Amino acid sequence: MPQTSRQIELASYPVGEIHPTDFEVNEVIIPELQVGEVLVRNAFTSVDPALCLRFRATAPKGYFRSFDLHAPLDGVATVGEVVASRAEDFREGDVVSHAYGFREYSVVNPSTIWLGGLGTLRRLDVSVSPAKLYLGPLGGSGISAYAGLFKAAELREGDVVWVSSAAGSVGSIASQLAKLRGHVVIGSAGSEAKIAYLLDELNLDAAFNYHSGPVAELLADVAPDGIDVYFDNVGGDHLEAAIAALRPWGRVALCGAISEYQSEVAVAGPSNLFLATSNELSLRGFRGSNHFDLRDEVIREIAPLIASGQFHYRETVFEGLEATPQAIVHMLRGDNLGKTLVHTA
Amino acid sequence: MPQTSRQIELASYPVGEIHPTDFEVNEVIIPELQVGEVLVRNAFTSVDPALCLRFRATAPKGYFRSFDLHAPLDGVATVGEVVASRAEDFREGDVVSHAYGFREYSVVNPSTIWLGGLGTLRRLDVSVSPAKLYLGPLGGSGISAYAGLFKAAELREGDVVWVSSAAGSVGSIASQLAKLRGHVVIGSAGSEAKIAYLLDELNLDAAFNYHSGPVAELLADVAPDGIDVYFDNVGGDHLEAAIAALRPWGRVALCGAISEYQSEVAVAGPSNLFLATSNELSLRGFRGSNHFDLRDEVIREIAPLIASGQFHYRETVFEGLEATPQAIVHMLRGDNLGKTLVHTA
Repeated sequence: MPQTSRQIELASYPVGEIHPTDFEVNEVIIPELQVGEVLVRNAFTSVDPALCLRFRATAPKGYFRSFDLHAPLDGVATVGEVVASRAEDFREGDVVSHAYGFREYSVVNPSTIWLGGLGTLRRLDVSVSPAKLYLGPLGGSGISAYAGLFKAAELREGDVVWVSSAAGSVGSIASQLAKLRGHVVIGSAGSEAKIAYLLDELNLDAAFNYHSGPVAELLADVAPDGIDVYFDNVGGDHLEAAIAALRPWGRVALCGAISEYQSEVAVAGPSNLFLATSNELSLRGFRGSNHFDLRDEVIREIAPLIASGQFHYRETVFEGLEATPQAIVHMLRGDNLGKTLVHTA
Repeated sequence: MPQTSRQIELASYPVGEIHPTDFEVNEVIIPELQVGEVLVRNAFTSVDPALCLRFRATAPKGYFRSFDLHAPLDGVATVGEVVASRAEDFREGDVVSHAYGFREYSVVNPSTIWLGGLGTLRRLDVSVSPAKLYLGPLGGSGISAYAGLFKAAELREGDVVWVSSAAGSVGSIASQLAKLRGHVVIGSAGSEAKIAYLLDELNLDAAFNYHSGPVAELLADVAPDGIDVYFDNVGGDHLEAAIAALRPWGRVALCGAISEYQSEVAVAGPSNLFLATSNELSLRGFRGSNHFDLRDEVIREIAPLIASGQFHYRETVFEGLEATPQAIVHMLRGDNLGKTLVHTA
């Protein structure tokens, strides 16, 4: 049994852009297991854009609370293997997911509910898929893509769909789910390599690099007749461009706003929101963790598609716990393709 | 038979705030009635906030198009009496509504569809209600209030509701409909007289004058536990305050944005839109003219309530066609209580 575990902690609340120096690695003594607890050796931890809202001293109202300084980062999805168990339903060797990521070992109580159920200790069926996919397409990312398309945007036959951050973890799933249902899908991303991925691997109908001009113009070039659904991972100018391009009864799924997460000041919202009234548009926010009930459906649909190669899944893996700060910073800079993971064991 | 008719025309597209001098009154010869047409002597014309979007050289995408300069203002709801008819289904003396307001006489073809059906020539049942109420609670205002509460906001039992411009035409109906269904209703308006009206006549649970402080603070004072639905007639700081106060799964009905209509520059949207994601909020735009199918239901509910005195209806009437510019300017300044009408015959 290991005596100690290293863990990532927040050294200070970042001001402006997040830097690796905002984090520190600390070694702590693993407490003795109590009845009902299990000890997990963590293999992969999920690195999600919205994490950085929790790195702020004040997290947005209604969101998960800010991380404490100099403390383990609780509420972060991770997968690993049970190495000791005093809980009835879990035994050594079980592959599980839980919410105590960014550390080598975690003591977990199965009765503690995390992330709307998504982060509660759960045994994974690794005959269906490798464990790490339960952090991505078969976990929070897949559920977010599903909830956004089918709940928030109420995807309807014939909808033309734009997905931003389409080469990212949630965006690549949302684009493919829409493509599989026969929709015209436009993707946007921030590098030529990502655009090539969207066009050549995901077979999207069109794609543009948002660095190559004003987003509204780039969107109009590929969707001259407008769009019906916008899956928003970016906010800012992307959201404004979408509102301008949406046809009557169009819908926006507000999944995230990565363009705004690192701003110290409030970012002005779309200046054309009256178009929502004139075109009867809906904007609906959602969080994967509110849609845990979709998990089984997501796994049932996506796992076989990945196994058969019809569904593409990419990840950018950072090796070793100490690479966590780099993983976070690179993800927020848009350097990573697909799901970002930290590999610790 | 009258030979001529006076009508209001737009003399120039207003720059910044709208002034009476942006309009002119012209006298035109009434053309001979063609087969299928009727001649209507207009009694009341509806003066609605969103009209001023059509006074701009460029109206918002998807909205009714801009009015032409030096031309009759078509697409404006009005009621009057048929004084001559060459149409099969209409006869002299019929009281009707149509969409050719802001003039003394209108030649109308019943087969021309206006405002999603709401402005198409239609005989009114004046045994149910005076004709002018078909411009307000039994017409576009009532339908907008209904569509906003029940379609856009999907009002649910127990919702705490905030209505802005609650002493206005649509707002006063929306507040009362919500009150009648047992909701806690907060109203806001821009004068102490209006606040007294909201509290003493409409019996709202709380009301505040938005001139008396930052809207977010005024709202927090009367709704310390937050709100579930915001019926938005104002936009700007009101919308931002609502987003901050909405509880999880809250909803905004985007009816209008009177605070922004007279701005020459794009007005920044709410800077806290990420709260829609973190609290799973919906913002949904709508226009009464897209919900003409609700008309019968609206009349069935509201007409008896008005007749029995359970429903309060106020109007501000400007006398004479030439008072139209004043009616418009005063309405936009927030001087008028309830529905604004111009009385021409």
